[in-house]
Amino acid sequence: MILHLHNGTSADQAEEIAEKTQSVYYEKDGRFILITPSKLQEPPTSFAEEIESSFVMSSDIQLASRSYRNEVREIDLKHTKIGGSTNNTIMITGPCSIESWEQIEQSADLLKSLGITTLRAGCYKPRTSPYSFQGLGLEGLKMLSKIREKYGFNIITEVRDASHVEDVIEHADIIQIGAKAMYDHGILRRCGKARKPVLLKRGFGSTLQEFVQAAEFILSGGNEDVMLCERGIRTFETKTRFTLDLCGVSYLKEHVNLPIILDTSHAMGYRYGVPDLTRACMAMGVDGLLIESHPNPAVAQSDAAQQLDFDQYWEMYSSLEPIAAAVGRNMV
Amino acid sequence: MILHLHNGTSADQAEEIAEKTQSVYYEKDGRFILITPSKLQEPPTSFAEEIESSFVMSSDIQLASRSYRNEVREIDLKHTKIGGSTNNTIMITGPCSIESWEQIEQSADLLKSLGITTLRAGCYKPRTSPYSFQGLGLEGLKMLSKIREKYGFNIITEVRDASHVEDVIEHADIIQIGAKAMYDHGILRRCGKARKPVLLKRGFGSTLQEFVQAAEFILSGGNEDVMLCERGIRTFETKTRFTLDLCGVSYLKEHVNLPIILDTSHAMGYRYGVPDLTRACMAMGVDGLLIESHPNPAVAQSDAAQQLDFDQYWEMYSSLEPIAAAVGRNMV
Amino acid sequence: MILHLHNGTSADQAEEIAEKTQSVYYEKDGRFILITPSKLQEPPTSFAEEIESSFVMSSDIQLASRSYRNEVREIDLKHTKIGGSTNNTIMITGPCSIESWEQIEQSADLLKSLGITTLRAGCYKPRTSPYSFQGLGLEGLKMLSKIREKYGFNIITEVRDASHVEDVIEHADIIQIGAKAMYDHGILRRCGKARKPVLLKRGFGSTLQEFVQAAEFILSGGNEDVMLCERGIRTFETKTRFTLDLCGVSYLKEHVNLPIILDTSHAMGYRYGVPDLTRACMAMGVDGLLIESHPNPAVAQSDAAQQLDFDQYWEMYSSLEPIAAAVGRNMV
Amino acid sequence: MILHLHNGTSADQAEEIAEKTQSVYYEKDGRFILITPSKLQEPPTSFAEEIESSFVMSSDIQLASRSYRNEVREIDLKHTKIGGSTNNTIMITGPCSIESWEQIEQSADLLKSLGITTLRAGCYKPRTSPYSFQGLGLEGLKMLSKIREKYGFNIITEVRDASHVEDVIEHADIIQIGAKAMYDHGILRRCGKARKPVLLKRGFGSTLQEFVQAAEFILSGGNEDVMLCERGIRTFETKTRFTLDLCGVSYLKEHVNLPIILDTSHAMGYRYGVPDLTRACMAMGVDGLLIESHPNPAVAQSDAAQQLDFDQYWEMYSSLEPIAAAVGRNMV
Repeated sequence: MILHLHNGTSADQAEEIAEKTQSVYYEKDGRFILITPSKLQEPPTSFAEEIESSFVMSSDIQLASRSYRNEVREIDLKHTKIGGSTNNTIMITGPCSIESWEQIEQSADLLKSLGITTLRAGCYKPRTSPYSFQGLGLEGLKMLSKIREKYGFNIITEVRDASHVEDVIEHADIIQIGAKAMYDHGILRRCGKARKPVLLKRGFGSTLQEFVQAAEFILSGGNEDVMLCERGIRTFETKTRFTLDLCGVSYLKEHVNLPIILDTSHAMGYRYGVPDLTRACMAMGVDGLLIESHPNPAVAQSDAAQQLDFDQYWEMYSSLEPIAAAVGRNMV
Repeated sequence: MILHLHNGTSADQAEEIAEKTQSVYYEKDGRFILITPSKLQEPPTSFAEEIESSFVMSSDIQLASRSYRNEVREIDLKHTKIGGSTNNTIMITGPCSIESWEQIEQSADLLKSLGITTLRAGCYKPRTSPYSFQGLGLEGLKMLSKIREKYGFNIITEVRDASHVEDVIEHADIIQIGAKAMYDHGILRRCGKARKPVLLKRGFGSTLQEFVQAAEFILSGGNEDVMLCERGIRTFETKTRFTLDLCGVSYLKEHVNLPIILDTSHAMGYRYGVPDLTRACMAMGVDGLLIESHPNPAVAQSDAAQQLDFDQYWEMYSSLEPIAAAVGRNMV
Repeated sequence: MILHLHNGTSADQAEEIAEKTQSVYYEKDGRFILITPSKLQEPPTSFAEEIESSFVMSSDIQLASRSYRNEVREIDLKHTKIGGSTNNTIMITGPCSIESWEQIEQSADLLKSLGITTLRAGCYKPRTSPYSFQGLGLEGLKMLSKIREKYGFNIITEVRDASHVEDVIEHADIIQIGAKAMYDHGILRRCGKARKPVLLKRGFGSTLQEFVQAAEFILSGGNEDVMLCERGIRTFETKTRFTLDLCGVSYLKEHVNLPIILDTSHAMGYRYGVPDLTRACMAMGVDGLLIESHPNPAVAQSDAAQQLDFDQYWEMYSSLEPIAAAVGRNMV
Repeated sequence: MILHLHNGTSADQAEEIAEKTQSVYYEKDGRFILITPSKLQEPPTSFAEEIESSFVMSSDIQLASRSYRNEVREIDLKHTKIGGSTNNTIMITGPCSIESWEQIEQSADLLKSLGITTLRAGCYKPRTSPYSFQGLGLEGLKMLSKIREKYGFNIITEVRDASHVEDVIEHADIIQIGAKAMYDHGILRRCGKARKPVLLKRGFGSTLQEFVQAAEFILSGGNEDVMLCERGIRTFETKTRFTLDLCGVSYLKEHVNLPIILDTSHAMGYRYGVPDLTRACMAMGVDGLLIESHPNPAVAQSDAAQQLDFDQYWEMYSSLEPIAAAVGRNMV
């Protein structure tokens, strides 16, 4: 259950109510918001005076639920907004990993020429083998900061584990939590205290319930700006890298109030399928599309098979425009 | 390996070559086409004179492969064609099960008003429980034949097991092989000898490789008119009935020469997600869309939760038109 | 709900009650047993006089449920019994496919030397490709009948689809329904009328609920002698052929009254793991172990990688004896 | 490829060779061990003098591979050893979470009475919801340290994320990396530098390849004492919490040189199946069994459904003894 306390309730009172109801809570614009375990199905009568409104929930999807807020949250991404009544679909692109200054500048030029404002590039790569390229780390983050200074983009980059979460929060405009880190409490709780939007990727072995509950860790820490990113789940099918779960996206659109971003690159794992899948996602009216592109995929140090080259990205981008128009979305 | 024998090779010669090469074969327009196990990687030199052309294959996806025919096969569905250079996307709808004459006439009227020419309705339901509605059987098939006489539609209906395959072949215009029967050799082999197009659904636990190999059973029997239908696979996610595998559809489009039909009703299992998913499929440029609709889903004897009512179908249909236009498809 | 009518209720009365309650029914020793859809939660008062006893069920697992019979059914397999209070674990072995008279005689000799009484061998192979060995068919069945005459074994062999179900019922002592045919109503219903025990394999994409419901098709047809066979499910892991679901076996042992047979050969797909897994199954106290063995696996026409040679089978058999003793099972 | 340099090669030389071959390396007993990416298939001739021996590998399973060391590593767990030629199966038990001093003392008494020397209890719980019990944290670790002082047990406890890895390393005797943290580089790399044995659990959505590669992060950091723990993978079956992958265990036993521990509690999720599954694992001859037990499962703050009470644990323990004897294992 979510409890909104009256404006003006003191911090001490809020803490006392939270303790008695085993709640997590945060303050927003002078109001305390408490979230009790979902099995509590009636507001506690002993605090009737302090409670302004209450929202009974059927599961631990609470702050993210349409039963709490029946709309997509609007999130301000500095250069643009998504969600709310914007009908915006944010186009995010860039290489899997930042590999060199030259490479990232080439990517920046692609974005500039298309009017795209959000650049993605990974510095800490969650590789499954210790014997492959692990990313440029802090050096990469600093290069991304320079790119922001030079081009004015929003930078989205991934935190891999809690050991470098402070560095990512410092250098990124949007913090990406990768699929393999979806359950990482160290990251989730820290992001709950951050003042920057978070893009949370679904673990490829995680249910929708667990996915949204991971977002609840961030939301209940007081950070209301969380986007969900579907990027493919692991199934028995191995001809493609993962299986993009668009049924799950339909579920999220119906039941959850967070903007939804789609990453078709990781789902497919092969560049030939990326444009088609991206067109499919656009037709579903999602809030964003996160696609990997690289000036020369053949020499990419990670995910070489799935990154589009710039011509392919450009061609795909053009083909998305009439579909966006058909479903009433603005590509931003 | 696929071997095309010269026109004029005799049946006896063809049989001898087939035996020596452990091949399956069929005759088409006076020419014998042999398919050897794929491990054979060089044409047998002893029959060099009889062999006109040969196609080496890397797996037992042979007749269906793009390495054999690098295009989508054109299939004539009586009222319309799909595949080839038609850019047609066939709209197929109707109830999960035929339940009564009145119900099926109402469905027929919906199709007529939208100009749709292919009606679906099941007579033999592959229910998982023996204690639920099992379908009208032969009586249902006869009603569908009457609908054809009255309205002139193409009828597509499902064969559940080999015990009634003859009846379905007699009464249907397009034979649907259901997901649970995908491996049924009795059905597959019989359909290989039928003179009617076949829509083969992917088993929900079946890999893409197995799916296309099931089609090979039909194709190698001499029936060249096979359509593949993706309808969702079974994964760990249970918030939706199945998981529609659009990555798999991308794979099929790249590697296989058969038209691809999408069934979003069974994938989603809940009507709220069907229109969105169907729009996604249209944006991928698929060859057909098979959607369940019912005059009154609340009283449907099977799949009540996922069938659209007529208003919902109509609204979805309208929303598909601009997307079809955007990707250059004709809704037929 | 299961309804036992009083002995002496007439067939007409039984039929009337069945119709009014939408039940499936069969007769056993002069008593009619009706099975209603499980949503019926109270016995119909209008037939209170005819109903001797009733069993309310929570799902469509009814006749197979421990809520109906809280024990493992005893099944008479001619040379031996399993289930009930026997503590017997039946050892079944033989080749994947019968390939020749010589091969099957060699297998028969192995069984004889170990005192095993049930021989497995497939005649109709449910291959995924039309371009590989498909089995000897009826010729194979006839050879198996001769083996029975000569050695006196029980023969278990697989029906692949409904087109040859009569032949298999005629020639087999135990009818095996393969994983790919688990949903085949044509087979299931026919086996419900057969007078021979049935071994039903779990579909590799099928839930436990669906698996047991498939058995309900047979049981509700009047054949009470059904064994369930777990043989591995399909998961994301591809280093092994399938994933043997022993958690599922625990579930079945707790909730279902049918004997449980384990097939570790198909689950593992590689002979190196078969003995270890078979020992694990024995320690769980299962009712039977179905293991593939072949006089010369290297030349086997199907499943070459997973069949044990005779030395390996013999060695595994010996290692099972102390484990059987430890858990109180008799190897028969 | 793994390269053993000659004893006496200097650190500078080792570093140079590592850099030139893009290797990770560590020092063990005065010898440098380098691990190159597995695609390197021939030892670099330019360093022929420094290289004592080399091991070519077919994948990035390298240090853990049977191609490198064809035996199970022996690991010293202070009170006992596992692996090597010990034939020991270590019994590990205790509650899911430490909840109070009283509770953990009761658990300690159970261990003492059975002669078990390794106590498990979680302090940082990787819950999927922020609104349920999260564990006692550092306070719990300190209580476990006191238990060690009082009873002399080995303590195994879980690190959930990198934010508290130092605390766990300080207080635990065996560091457990949970299923949800299997990919956490922050934890893996830190454990590679720790001087304590590590038990690494398989992520429930992780392949065997990824699982062992995660162990390679620790091994290549210089910590040679890693145990693998299979605890169930996520599949489509939901009647049980997860699916215990014993086929995977067979694979690991054949291909990997690390001891294997089985956790049947999390796999099953329901206590009724735990004893049967544990007997199955013992019959496979695994190196350890990690089972949850609780003085009063009904009031447990996490995993209440799957923990055994002490009578159940005791009964299961007794039933394991004859099986251990049958397969030649010592319960320690």
